[in-house]
Amino acid sequence: MRCSHVKGAQAILETLHRGGVDTIFANPGTSEMALVRALDETPGVRAVLGLFEGVVTGAADGYFRMSGRPAATLLHTGPGLANGCANLHNARRARSAIVNIVGDHARDHLALDAPLTTDIEAVAEPFSVWVRRIEEPGDAGGDAADALMVARERRGPATLIVPADIAWTEGAGPVEPPLVAARAAPDAAAIENAAKVLRAAGSRAMLLLGGGALDSQGIAAAARIAAATGARLASETFNARSARGAGRPFVQRVPYFGEAAEAFLAGVAQLLLVESRAPVNFFGYPGRRGQPLPADTAVSTLATPAEDGSAALIALADWLAPGSAAPLPSLTLPERPQGPINAVSFAAALARRLPENAIYCDEAITAGLALPAVMAAAAPHDELDLVGGAIGDALPLATGAALASPGRRVVCASGDGSALYTIQALWTQARENLDVTTIICANRVYAILAYEHLQIEGRPPGPRALPVLSLARPAIGFTELARGFGVEAVSVASAEALDDALDAAGHRRGPFLIEAIFEPMSLPAARR
Amino acid sequence: MRCSHVKGAQAILETLHRGGVDTIFANPGTSEMALVRALDETPGVRAVLGLFEGVVTGAADGYFRMSGRPAATLLHTGPGLANGCANLHNARRARSAIVNIVGDHARDHLALDAPLTTDIEAVAEPFSVWVRRIEEPGDAGGDAADALMVARERRGPATLIVPADIAWTEGAGPVEPPLVAARAAPDAAAIENAAKVLRAAGSRAMLLLGGGALDSQGIAAAARIAAATGARLASETFNARSARGAGRPFVQRVPYFGEAAEAFLAGVAQLLLVESRAPVNFFGYPGRRGQPLPADTAVSTLATPAEDGSAALIALADWLAPGSAAPLPSLTLPERPQGPINAVSFAAALARRLPENAIYCDEAITAGLALPAVMAAAAPHDELDLVGGAIGDALPLATGAALASPGRRVVCASGDGSALYTIQALWTQARENLDVTTIICANRVYAILAYEHLQIEGRPPGPRALPVLSLARPAIGFTELARGFGVEAVSVASAEALDDALDAAGHRRGPFLIEAIFEPMSLPAARR
Repeated sequence: MRCSHVKGAQAILETLHRGGVDTIFANPGTSEMALVRALDETPGVRAVLGLFEGVVTGAADGYFRMSGRPAATLLHTGPGLANGCANLHNARRARSAIVNIVGDHARDHLALDAPLTTDIEAVAEPFSVWVRRIEEPGDAGGDAADALMVARERRGPATLIVPADIAWTEGAGPVEPPLVAARAAPDAAAIENAAKVLRAAGSRAMLLLGGGALDSQGIAAAARIAAATGARLASETFNARSARGAGRPFVQRVPYFGEAAEAFLAGVAQLLLVESRAPVNFFGYPGRRGQPLPADTAVSTLATPAEDGSAALIALADWLAPGSAAPLPSLTLPERPQGPINAVSFAAALARRLPENAIYCDEAITAGLALPAVMAAAAPHDELDLVGGAIGDALPLATGAALASPGRRVVCASGDGSALYTIQALWTQARENLDVTTIICANRVYAILAYEHLQIEGRPPGPRALPVLSLARPAIGFTELARGFGVEAVSVASAEALDDALDAAGHRRGPFLIEAIFEPMSLPAARR
Repeated sequence: MRCSHVKGAQAILETLHRGGVDTIFANPGTSEMALVRALDETPGVRAVLGLFEGVVTGAADGYFRMSGRPAATLLHTGPGLANGCANLHNARRARSAIVNIVGDHARDHLALDAPLTTDIEAVAEPFSVWVRRIEEPGDAGGDAADALMVARERRGPATLIVPADIAWTEGAGPVEPPLVAARAAPDAAAIENAAKVLRAAGSRAMLLLGGGALDSQGIAAAARIAAATGARLASETFNARSARGAGRPFVQRVPYFGEAAEAFLAGVAQLLLVESRAPVNFFGYPGRRGQPLPADTAVSTLATPAEDGSAALIALADWLAPGSAAPLPSLTLPERPQGPINAVSFAAALARRLPENAIYCDEAITAGLALPAVMAAAAPHDELDLVGGAIGDALPLATGAALASPGRRVVCASGDGSALYTIQALWTQARENLDVTTIICANRVYAILAYEHLQIEGRPPGPRALPVLSLARPAIGFTELARGFGVEAVSVASAEALDDALDAAGHRRGPFLIEAIFEPMSLPAARR
């Protein structure tokens, strides 16, 4: 496009396109119609419709995690943005770059307090690394370029508010977004210092990996370091993307529950952070410290989240053990599981049947408690976790990951409760014919909350509280929901049938859903 | 309860109960477990589970609109609150009192920036009339009492943030919430002045009713006033609750589209506001004023939204025309409709088959364009509209309205696109066995946006924009979605079948869904 005076909407889309954005996840309204029209004039940017804004933002997150390139979102005023905020929260915690385009009323209409008028900046701030409102039509291209640059530099959602009249008015031109420098590796002094502390602490040291340090090269280098120094190797509990599976070192996670995390970290005298933070419990509990690390553990940093942890690990491994190879665990896949579906048989079936080079999106929560150890023996894969804890992320994440990764099968496991926040993602999967297998772990209870109730109150929920945690009445028919959204589906209630269904799903094209009916949960008795 | 030192959670629930709150719509997480446990100790407050927070907040809105009593909500940290904000926006615009209880991390856990840490105040502010965080356990009862009082006084969502440790710590006591004075009627001077301006303007005056002025007594009095003075009678475009149907005066609405609203208001020399605001277009459009009222119209106020408009109308009618009766329109129900389902045949079937004393929740959008005139002849009913414009309100609203109104059938009509934001409401309807008939107007397009695109861009959407507005591929199976959530359903594709299905639905108990397949939409050609 050579024209320097186009409508603001077109300047925005063309600028993003020049900056490498090819996908815009959209759920627009009236104030975004000029932006929708601009799609007709910007063939390099493709819109993917979501039926709900949480699908849109979660898909943009998954798209970034797999492609490394930001997608845009298109959202409608404050309420539309609010609907997308839970998954923007997850994206921000996962350090995923996203450009949110949020339409607002025309400038002269704002003062009239029409019904949809909202303080969009206030809604955006808690979930964005950057927020700006375009003030004049001539700023549209430059502001879009800034949004893209900041999203990449600060690695998170950058929100650009676009008044409708700026989108429909001519007078803007597209701008060439500036390049963003690649993340630097730490300097030699940091490497040398890390080597020193690891050697001094020996087996009482722990390498804690997060972020980009969990790519396949990073964990291979980390395993060489561990072998050379005796240090233990661990990752954060939930990770934006981690290379896992057979042929790769096994990296244990810091456990979710505070009590287990304390046991896991006991005896660690030296914690070396690599794109990670010192562990913090997900929630506070009565009488328990919020940080599970021993109070006298020394903490040092090999790479901050803004640095290239994988490169740092390679440099450190080459310093400590030049020419060494990563020791690999000897793991075997479980036998074909039998009997009822529970956390153990589910993990066995999933690990056995995970397709080669799959992308695994995890929001199985309590149903997935047995997964980490078993999935280490599965075919090599990338795992995407719920990093921010706002449930309802996995199905959208899988949607965006699949769009970013043609030719790779995405397998998504979700609790039944958590799947229902953004179940509309299935429709986008059907519409785009995405290679996604969704497994619903249907235990028919917010099981994590039953555990948490026990942790906090020292007893299981009573007769008036329990219904608030139960999904049993009426039982939710996920195969019917899937078919309603255009996705084929099957329901299984035995481990054998689950194993078969996963086998078949791995050879399909297009989306598929498996409802796995778990055996009823038995709550532990009161603790105190 | 006599104990003055109970856990904060219990103090909150007991205080709300003493203040008349009997229902709490809930979608809790870990930080709310003490509040969930407190349900076991507060038998007067019943929790109703929603699978998604937008269901929770929309249901609380519907509950208030029908009962006049605030319900509480129970939401989980910033992301959970954000998921509920679109329908809190609608509730705020509808002036519905709600007490939001939002759990947060324990106080000493907040500084650790655990994954779910968010600026809850910032999320709540744009959608609340009041926000407070409980600072100390001893404040729990008093803060809950304040929240309830403010929600009632300011008529909107009051948000109380409850750190988890305050909920689980003893040291609080319940508090007796203060009574809130009933809304005053305007004084005699206001009545006299209104009489004067109406008499002076004659048929060039318009009474514009909103809020509580639209109850059956209010509109009857307004019709007496109109008959006595020649003034026209109108309501705001969308209303929280309005008495409609046979045996009641017909109150026309200000049309939605600016062009039509200008035509409707042309020639009005004197506008008298009764719990309403001077009309503002829903959106701004290129080259069109945002206010459809003629620039030289004089605007005066009989009752502000904070006053009792219905009482004011009665006083004014008695002043102007003592002893008069409201003239009633002579309206007949349409014949049984035939052929394809479109806005006209849909309106005919709905009006013919609306059960006596039904509650009608409207979010039919373009599918409902023919409703207002025809529904005036339907059985008497209360209509609840989407007041704030954040779509995805009708199904939750119907859910809460049904819970508040045992023995009355709720009929809810929603566009297919808008139903998909909060479709999870169906499950709560099934679980609670609510008498709700949901009609999905399945035209398989965001039809309003196709119109708006034409208004703003002067032409229909082109080949790359159109897919962003289309819901046709794949077609969504609403009967399957309904069954998945435990609600019986039928799909109809002719006006006759719709008429029959509505007839049958009116005699049922429990929830039911009718998918009405509309004939394909034909977009008008380009305007400019």
